[in-house]
Amino acid sequence: MKARIIVTPKKAVVDPQGKTVQNALAHLGYTGVRAVHVGKYIEIELEPGTDRAAAQRALDDACRKFLSNPIIEDYHLEIVDDS
Amino acid sequence: MKARIIVTPKKAVVDPQGKTVQNALAHLGYTGVRAVHVGKYIEIELEPGTDRAAAQRALDDACRKFLSNPIIEDYHLEIVDDS
Repeated sequence: MKARIIVTPKKAVVDPQGKTVQNALAHLGYTGVRAVHVGKYIEIELEPGTDRAAAQRALDDACRKFLSNPIIEDYHLEIVDDS
Repeated sequence: MKARIIVTPKKAVVDPQGKTVQNALAHLGYTGVRAVHVGKYIEIELEPGTDRAAAQRALDDACRKFLSNPIIEDYHLEIVDDS
């Protein structure tokens, strides 16, 4: 079982990395791009036998406390079986 | 329609960010964590009417050429309808 966390800037927050990638895509001839958002991807492998609900609660807590900055970032957490 | 790209260090590559997060999780009392991998998440909003297959080819190309470093990173690209 593993947790997949995606942390992205809130829509209202300026995203310089996103702008940079967007400009680079345009400069290199990739058309049809309306906007780009760049964030963090965190994948956490959990020990076998970990309780899913407990892991969800603990990792939600970790996301709010230090894996993301709730003032300027949103996070999306999902716990999936190993694939 | 948008593209979601996840870029992660190859398994064989040392992942200092992942180690740092893993140590912090342990230090803050989050147990049951076997390994942590930290990478980039890139979300690209595409103009309405963009051809999906053409976008897939172009973004695969962009991923190989400059959104990831094929020597030390893997990427996963999926094109999804707006949700």
